[in-house]
Amino acid sequence: MPVNLSTPVAAQLLPVAGVSLGVAEANIKRPDRKDLLVMQFCDGARVAGVFTKNRFCAAPVIVAREHLAQSAVAGSTGIRALLVNTGNANAGTGEHGMRDARTSCAALAGLLGCKASQILPFSTGVIMEILPVAKIAAGLPGAVTNMRADNWLAAAEAIMTTDIVAKAISRQVTIDGVAITITGIAKGSGMIHPNMATMLGYIATDAKIAQPLLQAMVAEAANRSFNCITVDGDTSTNDALMLIATGKAALPEVADAGSKAGKALQAAISEVAIHLAQAIVRDGEGATKFITVRVEGGTSEAECRKIGYAIAHSPLVKTAFFASDPNLGRILAAIGYAGIDDLDVAALKLYLDEVLVAENGGRAASYREEEGQRVMRQSDITIRVVLGRGAENATLWTCDFSYDYVKINASYRS
Amino acid sequence: MPVNLSTPVAAQLLPVAGVSLGVAEANIKRPDRKDLLVMQFCDGARVAGVFTKNRFCAAPVIVAREHLAQSAVAGSTGIRALLVNTGNANAGTGEHGMRDARTSCAALAGLLGCKASQILPFSTGVIMEILPVAKIAAGLPGAVTNMRADNWLAAAEAIMTTDIVAKAISRQVTIDGVAITITGIAKGSGMIHPNMATMLGYIATDAKIAQPLLQAMVAEAANRSFNCITVDGDTSTNDALMLIATGKAALPEVADAGSKAGKALQAAISEVAIHLAQAIVRDGEGATKFITVRVEGGTSEAECRKIGYAIAHSPLVKTAFFASDPNLGRILAAIGYAGIDDLDVAALKLYLDEVLVAENGGRAASYREEEGQRVMRQSDITIRVVLGRGAENATLWTCDFSYDYVKINASYRS
Repeated sequence: MPVNLSTPVAAQLLPVAGVSLGVAEANIKRPDRKDLLVMQFCDGARVAGVFTKNRFCAAPVIVAREHLAQSAVAGSTGIRALLVNTGNANAGTGEHGMRDARTSCAALAGLLGCKASQILPFSTGVIMEILPVAKIAAGLPGAVTNMRADNWLAAAEAIMTTDIVAKAISRQVTIDGVAITITGIAKGSGMIHPNMATMLGYIATDAKIAQPLLQAMVAEAANRSFNCITVDGDTSTNDALMLIATGKAALPEVADAGSKAGKALQAAISEVAIHLAQAIVRDGEGATKFITVRVEGGTSEAECRKIGYAIAHSPLVKTAFFASDPNLGRILAAIGYAGIDDLDVAALKLYLDEVLVAENGGRAASYREEEGQRVMRQSDITIRVVLGRGAENATLWTCDFSYDYVKINASYRS
Repeated sequence: MPVNLSTPVAAQLLPVAGVSLGVAEANIKRPDRKDLLVMQFCDGARVAGVFTKNRFCAAPVIVAREHLAQSAVAGSTGIRALLVNTGNANAGTGEHGMRDARTSCAALAGLLGCKASQILPFSTGVIMEILPVAKIAAGLPGAVTNMRADNWLAAAEAIMTTDIVAKAISRQVTIDGVAITITGIAKGSGMIHPNMATMLGYIATDAKIAQPLLQAMVAEAANRSFNCITVDGDTSTNDALMLIATGKAALPEVADAGSKAGKALQAAISEVAIHLAQAIVRDGEGATKFITVRVEGGTSEAECRKIGYAIAHSPLVKTAFFASDPNLGRILAAIGYAGIDDLDVAALKLYLDEVLVAENGGRAASYREEEGQRVMRQSDITIRVVLGRGAENATLWTCDFSYDYVKINASYRS
């Protein structure tokens, strides 16, 4: 069951002027479930995104990158819609997959009266199976017909795969007296080694943002959110986070990251991205605990992240949390093999929430097992490592590792 | 259950002249199990070893390294015995742990009539708990009293922790008409992310081997065996592989790795080490399948290992093997995120045993799901990746990932 995460309330998901969303049941892998999403944008909307760095990136990722690059050329027409399907990742499908991604874009373009290059395709689901393009084409008219501005919850549901709970959130921020809306949705739930689990995120705002700043903003938001639940640069075949700025709000174009408006927008967009990324962890496959790993006092952020990931990826640490067992030596061992060659293990301190667990290379004199046990029984737990060798920090989020993770992933295709 | 691995036959474990072994039930963590091993060597025996590179290495590792370094100084007296306990790793125990490791050595030295610095201590078990030195001291006389040359199976049993099956093997090789015996034992079974699972290995031969060559031989053997089931340089707090050469055989001292005798000895020692390392995988916690990952045609061995580890460490790949599900896209995705930036994924070929699964960036035209299914149902499976960009290779071994892995590691301390 998801850890302290419930289905978003539809009424709290605010429409973003210039965005309408339609979903359909296209029967791509299973009947009777929403598996197709069309997100259409007004004329003049700008789109930026970050994609997986996996060398085996999926056909839709290649096509989406290509279309996005074309749209950024001055004088070209912009991106008008996103097309997302679940049930099939169209990855590991070679040239056939490339044709299928283009055909899907063309089918939607025909319905929307734009060019195929103005559509960005996204797929998630099983790898190495041919995309059922005919089913997608047959499902599209239904999705286009039911497009609405207040359809964000249905959109969040339409992109779920092994997710138990839909992930969506809205934030409003007032800038120079103008209310700016930001609404985002995401999917993803495989968390034990997150570089394998497809994460898709779509965040839209009615602010008008210059294209270079929009790209910088989505990269920064990803770095503070989705990249804190995944290995640096190592992502699934299909991962993507897209940021859409429709420019419909009555606020002048924002082009400077350092301006008051730029900072306020970035903060709100990052906040939405962090909520969505944390929701993915809370809905981690089989998760029973939400674990924040905070590493402080390092000589660089990269060093802190390296240690954080060693802890967050250790199956021994994760199974100990599942068992609510304060077997904290496993955390020390993970820190030890994180690959920081000059780390003085006697200088660091390890905390479970506020409880000091280890110092001077061993168990803290003040530590009592029952205190560790008390924290371990919680559903939200913070592991804090204080390195004491610098001023840099990093925070990551992960979940525990349960029987159900194996069950879900051993039967995902059946 | 262990995958195609059964308990060694005592009669097939050959005594090594100059080595005697004694075990005891010292009640370190649980009553009624052998948890203490003493391995005594004749005068003149030489010992070399490789240890964990974990920054949080355990107290016995620090002490063993120190004693070994002292023994290698010309004119010093050599190592006379190893002392191994299970039930407690004496890791994450700070200065207290260092004192405990030294006290344990002194207790055995008193019984054997040698110096504490002539003993190498090894511990495996729970981390961050104080070593029960009094129990070890109380158990040692029993172990010393029952020392015998033909006690290898009991020795292998005495070092087991979560192992289901004892791991031991003997080989004989005839060099210049002299029969040379090599017998080894090992423990270890946590395999999903093996850098966390303590692996201990002890291999003895009656050959006489010069100290520098002995050190080179144990490093080479580890590199071809234990280091093929673990992350390069990233090991548990307590890992160690020791090689003992008693010099009791009627063969002149071997000092040259390139000589006929040197090559024959290295091959036999590596063969013993590989058997023991594979046995650890076959007895992997909850393992139901033994998986060989072979990566061929890379530009360097390091590149091949990197790709091999990405596959071998992927929980999604490992759960698919547990389910006998040829969900082979997961292997392609793991290759894609292995971190080889210039990898041309369209150029590689992926095989399951002899079945060509993927080429040209997607499913092979000749591939039939039922062929993949047939291989996946086997208990021994080879994943072969042919990169087609060089002449280097690497072979790793791993196991699948089952419900029982979680069960074992969620309850290890209880």
